[in-house]
Amino acid sequence: MKSLSAVKFLGIILLAFLPATLSDEFHPSGSEGKTRSTRATNTAEELADYWNFDAQHRLLHQLTIRPNHNVAKNVIFFLGDGMSIATLAASRMYLGQLQGHTGEESRLFFEDFPYTGLAKTYCVDKQIPDSACTATAYLGGVKANYATIGVTAAVKRYECEKGQDAANHVNSIAAWAQKAGKGTGLVTTARVTHASPAGVYAHTAYREWESDAIVEKSGKDPKTCQDIASQLINNETGRKLKVIMGGGRKKFLPKGMQDEDGEEGERIDGVNLIDEWKLKKKHRSAAYVYDRDGLLSVDTNNTSYLLGLFASEHMKYSLEADHEKEPSLAEMTKTAIEMLSKEKRGFFLFVEGAKIDMGHHRARAHLALDETVQFAEAIRVATELTNSRDTLIVVTADHSHTMSIAGYADRGNDILDFSTSKSDVDNELYTTLSYANGPGAMSRENFTEILQRGTVDPRSKDYTYAGTVPMKNETHGGDDVAVFANGPWAHLFGGLYEQNLIPHIIGYAACIGNGLTACKRSSMYRPKN
Amino acid sequence: MKSLSAVKFLGIILLAFLPATLSDEFHPSGSEGKTRSTRATNTAEELADYWNFDAQHRLLHQLTIRPNHNVAKNVIFFLGDGMSIATLAASRMYLGQLQGHTGEESRLFFEDFPYTGLAKTYCVDKQIPDSACTATAYLGGVKANYATIGVTAAVKRYECEKGQDAANHVNSIAAWAQKAGKGTGLVTTARVTHASPAGVYAHTAYREWESDAIVEKSGKDPKTCQDIASQLINNETGRKLKVIMGGGRKKFLPKGMQDEDGEEGERIDGVNLIDEWKLKKKHRSAAYVYDRDGLLSVDTNNTSYLLGLFASEHMKYSLEADHEKEPSLAEMTKTAIEMLSKEKRGFFLFVEGAKIDMGHHRARAHLALDETVQFAEAIRVATELTNSRDTLIVVTADHSHTMSIAGYADRGNDILDFSTSKSDVDNELYTTLSYANGPGAMSRENFTEILQRGTVDPRSKDYTYAGTVPMKNETHGGDDVAVFANGPWAHLFGGLYEQNLIPHIIGYAACIGNGLTACKRSSMYRPKN
Repeated sequence: MKSLSAVKFLGIILLAFLPATLSDEFHPSGSEGKTRSTRATNTAEELADYWNFDAQHRLLHQLTIRPNHNVAKNVIFFLGDGMSIATLAASRMYLGQLQGHTGEESRLFFEDFPYTGLAKTYCVDKQIPDSACTATAYLGGVKANYATIGVTAAVKRYECEKGQDAANHVNSIAAWAQKAGKGTGLVTTARVTHASPAGVYAHTAYREWESDAIVEKSGKDPKTCQDIASQLINNETGRKLKVIMGGGRKKFLPKGMQDEDGEEGERIDGVNLIDEWKLKKKHRSAAYVYDRDGLLSVDTNNTSYLLGLFASEHMKYSLEADHEKEPSLAEMTKTAIEMLSKEKRGFFLFVEGAKIDMGHHRARAHLALDETVQFAEAIRVATELTNSRDTLIVVTADHSHTMSIAGYADRGNDILDFSTSKSDVDNELYTTLSYANGPGAMSRENFTEILQRGTVDPRSKDYTYAGTVPMKNETHGGDDVAVFANGPWAHLFGGLYEQNLIPHIIGYAACIGNGLTACKRSSMYRPKN
Repeated sequence: MKSLSAVKFLGIILLAFLPATLSDEFHPSGSEGKTRSTRATNTAEELADYWNFDAQHRLLHQLTIRPNHNVAKNVIFFLGDGMSIATLAASRMYLGQLQGHTGEESRLFFEDFPYTGLAKTYCVDKQIPDSACTATAYLGGVKANYATIGVTAAVKRYECEKGQDAANHVNSIAAWAQKAGKGTGLVTTARVTHASPAGVYAHTAYREWESDAIVEKSGKDPKTCQDIASQLINNETGRKLKVIMGGGRKKFLPKGMQDEDGEEGERIDGVNLIDEWKLKKKHRSAAYVYDRDGLLSVDTNNTSYLLGLFASEHMKYSLEADHEKEPSLAEMTKTAIEMLSKEKRGFFLFVEGAKIDMGHHRARAHLALDETVQFAEAIRVATELTNSRDTLIVVTADHSHTMSIAGYADRGNDILDFSTSKSDVDNELYTTLSYANGPGAMSRENFTEILQRGTVDPRSKDYTYAGTVPMKNETHGGDDVAVFANGPWAHLFGGLYEQNLIPHIIGYAACIGNGLTACKRSSMYRPKN
């Protein structure tokens, strides 16, 4: 490294800030105007000083980071469903390339948060988890069984009675916050009864029991086995939520009744849960909205409760949605924060970018990356509307996916396109992105036959692993997910840990829950009962 | 979360320490005695308190972490070549399963380090990098072009003259340390002239120029285009290294001469560089060793310089090596630290687990995971031989790979084996581990034809990505790698950053190099020339 002169130091301001501004400027997504040619690299990158100044600038920034020991009045938990670490890298390239840059040097908004950790996502009975058992971990602080929500691992999938037993319930950090007098809310692009948001308020032995119709279909009695939509409207944690936004109207409406889009409800108990919600809130100012106009016209100052159901099923991918009708994740997040900012004792808000996962499951990376960019935009809006002195923002994923960023593409090559390098076996093109399995997979050897013949044992050190498995839906991945944190006690999120640590740290920072807290550190040594 | 009673708190000691002890006990690798059956889950995991106590215990640990503001007298840089984040998760399962546990809950030794970050690995001309350009980033602080080492991006691959020009040279942190009077060394399981270790001492426009024979073969004149082995023995940074250990004897010996294993040298200049090394060191106590016995008999207190070349080419995979002949990475690391601990001004040591990458390239995950376990063991040994008060240990990877941990295997299922779930398309088995490409890939569609027909555009949001590409060698991955740090100023390694930040932080912590340092923070504002 050459000595750095004072004159050269000016270069820091010009060069080192260049990548930093990329994520500040947000453009609506889409691939218009993109050409197949690889974008030119900034020639300044040929200079050692370009990189030295950039690194010294960042080092200076690292030196200014100070632990924030305030109590977190507010907490916003951003969950990128299935947002693997490979998704972060590919999405920042996608974002940067939409903005006309080479892309690799770009940053998603939350990638600038000062503290990062890694979370282990396995569940009690599965090496590779789903969104249900992980929700119990990152919201309730307890690892659980696959496909169960808000219950301990004493409850196995489908064990409805055990799941209804309060002795097996795991309360979420939203319930802890409510107990401490905080306002609470949830925002998602999925059905509000889907696994991740259900982790905020539900206790169930099976994630698919979103309406009583499905409970019955699975052979259980909906009268004794309460569905998730009913739990949201009728049970304690769901009832107290000040803000509920997402999709999934049909889970709340009876068969034979049409929703605002003309879609039929699926409930068999004849109950209109949306009306029930209005009725319960009738002595308080409450608003139900079903489209973007409705959302934007909410008088947040004079509304105590807000229910926004913007689709019959999941909300649409941003790239496929009618933006006049469906609000963006950022717009929902903005209104949610405005609603909850009235709370004197602060708030807890859960925000999910649900469709990252759905894009991956279909092996449609373009959708997954675009939803990640939408998710990052919601985090930007939330960060601007709050103050890191009193608001802790945590960003993480529930589990990984199997997408790889493979090969040796040239710098600036379109992340969605074919690589600039080819196979050295058949000289054919390949795409930089691919999945271990899913609907795009092609033929492969018959492993079952091989196993029966006993000729190959994948446990042998000499076994060569296959590169493809056909599947209706691409699966989750079992590797760790990243955690990004900013605000009070965010420095506690460093290191590699079990996913269920996350709400314990949040509880500490916000002085909620029954564990150690920043307000009363020795609480765990003084039994309360 | 239920209230935690004082009696229950005792459970912390019993339960929460259970996983913590896994990585302390190290067993030689191998799959002996493993059965195909999935290992039983600890029934205590059914209790909410099991997870609550475990998390509260870790929270307490997080609260005790204090930034270390000492100057780093010593720095040990551990580089897991190709050690992707998926490799970490799979390797910890492999380790735990070797010890008879379910595995997912295990931890690699360095995963307990208090600080973690994420590093972006792209190079100036490549989206997905190699071990050469990344070595220039993580050792020299400057991003460079693919396949080049220790030179700026002004030098493109094969541009020998430009690569020889000192104006384009990037000095490594080892050179910075030498300038500050510290002892320096390198240890690797690859040839000591391979890309990663060459990043410590070499400047070259092409990583393959490891001997003069290869320089000539590529059409360059070895007299003006100096090979990497020659640079190690004759040039300033290489000459000053107190410790050099790894493989690659044939790069140092002339054609016609046999090494200790009867393998022929490949140099065409007739020079025996091992003898040259001995000659240069003749007035100082120097030892050349070529096997494990030789290594273990080195009198480190009375030896100033140590050259250990334990193989003609790369050293063997631990699972395939003759352990009587080849020392383990941990054994080499131990001797290197004993050698360098004599240094009054401290030391810089580079240690590479090189064969993780090589296992992945062959799509032989078993080898890659086992090498990761070996790598973790070397880090354990280094941590025990040093003191975190004055020794900074950084662990990272140069780049990712394309290995996925896919599907929904049950807890405790052998990470190397078939998954416990099957494809929902053809009902066939699949392995949990697979690669996006490589020698194990099977047939696939002809993308070139599709592109020519224009029927499919992968940039379209509706494009479904393929799951396989046949390749001679599996490729690198383009996602971020993890950074783990312990010791002085390790807290500066939090966040997500460009890979070339790493040596700038080390320079700061150890007060070496020309940038900001902990000893003289304002140095960059005071030009030295």
